[in-house]
Amino acid sequence: MRVGILGGGQLGWMTILEGRKLGFEFLVLDKNPNSPASRIADRWFPPEKVEEFRELCDVITAEFEHVEEEVLEKVSEKMRPRAELILMKRSRVEEKKTLFRLGYPLPRFVWGTGSELKEMVNLIGPPVVVKRDSMGYDGKGQWRVSSVKEVKGLGEDEKFVVEEFVDFEAEVSVIGVRDMWGNIRTFPLTENHHSDGILLHNRTRTTPEVEREAVELVKSLMEDLKVVGLLAVELFLTRNGKLLINEVAPRPHNTGHYTLDGTETSQFENLLRAVCGLPLGSTRLKTPAGMVNILGLDLEDFSPEEILKIEGAKLYWYGKEKRPRRKMGHVNVVGRSEEEVSVKIKKVLSLLYPKETKKS
Amino acid sequence: MRVGILGGGQLGWMTILEGRKLGFEFLVLDKNPNSPASRIADRWFPPEKVEEFRELCDVITAEFEHVEEEVLEKVSEKMRPRAELILMKRSRVEEKKTLFRLGYPLPRFVWGTGSELKEMVNLIGPPVVVKRDSMGYDGKGQWRVSSVKEVKGLGEDEKFVVEEFVDFEAEVSVIGVRDMWGNIRTFPLTENHHSDGILLHNRTRTTPEVEREAVELVKSLMEDLKVVGLLAVELFLTRNGKLLINEVAPRPHNTGHYTLDGTETSQFENLLRAVCGLPLGSTRLKTPAGMVNILGLDLEDFSPEEILKIEGAKLYWYGKEKRPRRKMGHVNVVGRSEEEVSVKIKKVLSLLYPKETKKS
Repeated sequence: MRVGILGGGQLGWMTILEGRKLGFEFLVLDKNPNSPASRIADRWFPPEKVEEFRELCDVITAEFEHVEEEVLEKVSEKMRPRAELILMKRSRVEEKKTLFRLGYPLPRFVWGTGSELKEMVNLIGPPVVVKRDSMGYDGKGQWRVSSVKEVKGLGEDEKFVVEEFVDFEAEVSVIGVRDMWGNIRTFPLTENHHSDGILLHNRTRTTPEVEREAVELVKSLMEDLKVVGLLAVELFLTRNGKLLINEVAPRPHNTGHYTLDGTETSQFENLLRAVCGLPLGSTRLKTPAGMVNILGLDLEDFSPEEILKIEGAKLYWYGKEKRPRRKMGHVNVVGRSEEEVSVKIKKVLSLLYPKETKKS
Repeated sequence: MRVGILGGGQLGWMTILEGRKLGFEFLVLDKNPNSPASRIADRWFPPEKVEEFRELCDVITAEFEHVEEEVLEKVSEKMRPRAELILMKRSRVEEKKTLFRLGYPLPRFVWGTGSELKEMVNLIGPPVVVKRDSMGYDGKGQWRVSSVKEVKGLGEDEKFVVEEFVDFEAEVSVIGVRDMWGNIRTFPLTENHHSDGILLHNRTRTTPEVEREAVELVKSLMEDLKVVGLLAVELFLTRNGKLLINEVAPRPHNTGHYTLDGTETSQFENLLRAVCGLPLGSTRLKTPAGMVNILGLDLEDFSPEEILKIEGAKLYWYGKEKRPRRKMGHVNVVGRSEEEVSVKIKKVLSLLYPKETKKS
């Protein structure tokens, strides 16, 4: 099987690492031949060569939604999941409208242009979260706004979403995988902790009732969207026990990196099984697990040795150029219990971010 | 870290897959640019270019002991484990003599040339096992002999080992890993089942007393041999409960493939941690696990889909050219209990080898 991947980031990199086991070949389309996935692919293609790329692939998937629209169009026939799902994810307005139309629980929201921002903020009522329509990921293009006065300097004609600020008890996520015959599996629920809009760490959490509700929601949404591949759903668990969808992503998700060490099949392998028409793998948790992102740090900025000394800690290093707050790698941890995993996550955090963790 | 691997087989292939996670680069030296590890390495070198290979590597390890002696000599300074250990493993006589000298329990054995074979067989007393001194792996170059009459046609000047045939209760193995400071970890014991001298399947087995004794033996042997890296020790558990060493191997071992899915750190990652001077990883078993080898079958000769339908089954496909009884890939299985793993192993065997399994 020859699999094409749009995007050369770490999600593609891990997809290749997992897919190699099955003997698959991988072609990566990305501007950068030195991106993590481009480097380990069997072949790399720049966007100009999309036609050649398409002809060689048996199936094409995406690890990144912000690919050029004309590239998506040219490969759409071989795309799994459907190109429309990737397009939906490119626009926060489209994502919200789709979920709202289908009747899923969301924080209250409105959308409009920059010139209507003040009106929108007043309509929802501060505190609100203002989000740019496009190129939004890892906390980019979003701001918490407590007063109308703070809203200024944003493009008048640009599109925005304004949504209520949810004072949640926890952020959780469930990742589902669906094959072309409609079979669905879901991965164990995780509790996620963000820092300035970027996932910092997460771990599996046994909360049967919340999980049951979240799993039903994810299954139903995968059916509605006819996803073939993965769908990651980030949810707010509100203080009165309600689940609201924060974001969805039709691709491997940062909150599912723990599956490489925690579940019988990883999210990456199950993506490949789904899009290649193979039976889905078991998503049973082998042992409690969690993850810590390595943000904006190079190998010289922390001690990999100290991290690897932690029992059950596994380092994943993407080999990217350092930039502030960029996802450079992650550490998976496993343990005998959720408490043990939590203790190890704290230890990893204190080794990676000694200043920040001392403060708290 | 830039790691060189002597040999391009599946053991090197899995070492690279695991080492990619740590961000390492891999150079492979092998005659064949299309061997499993050569194909996914950052660079491939033929044996003629051993000097260039050596210069570029930070450290060099071996996934195969039958490399040319002059190659071994040229890279010996950067070798971990020591080239002497690889040399020892190339000769069954050397291996036996070394273990005997150090006082480890072995089946009774003698060694000599082809012209002395009958005498040796009579000395040990049939049934015996006759083994060629060199190029012995996967049951190659060894024969069970029940009568002196069967011994004929072997090279008069060639060296052989003749050892007593052990009527064992079980074949087991323990793999250990030792770093350059002498820290040692051992992986969980497995029970192994061979077919005509080739490992067919194995699984983890909880037998605390046997395991304790085997672990002590492996630790002591790693100390004696000053191994930096892995040491796999295959043992006979005799019907009166004694452990005798059958074979040792200073490299990743087929009976440790289950660690990719069963333990917190795999044998391949721990090899890399050891030879690169990183802390050894936890070898705790996350969940009972086992493995079945795919021998002499191509993807058309069985149904990968049926294999992947088994809950907790993972396919590893090496991408080699088919030859009779050649190791083409393997299936790892995990489950909630050892019984569940056993049932899944039987299922995999029946799918891969329907004729053979019907007979039994």
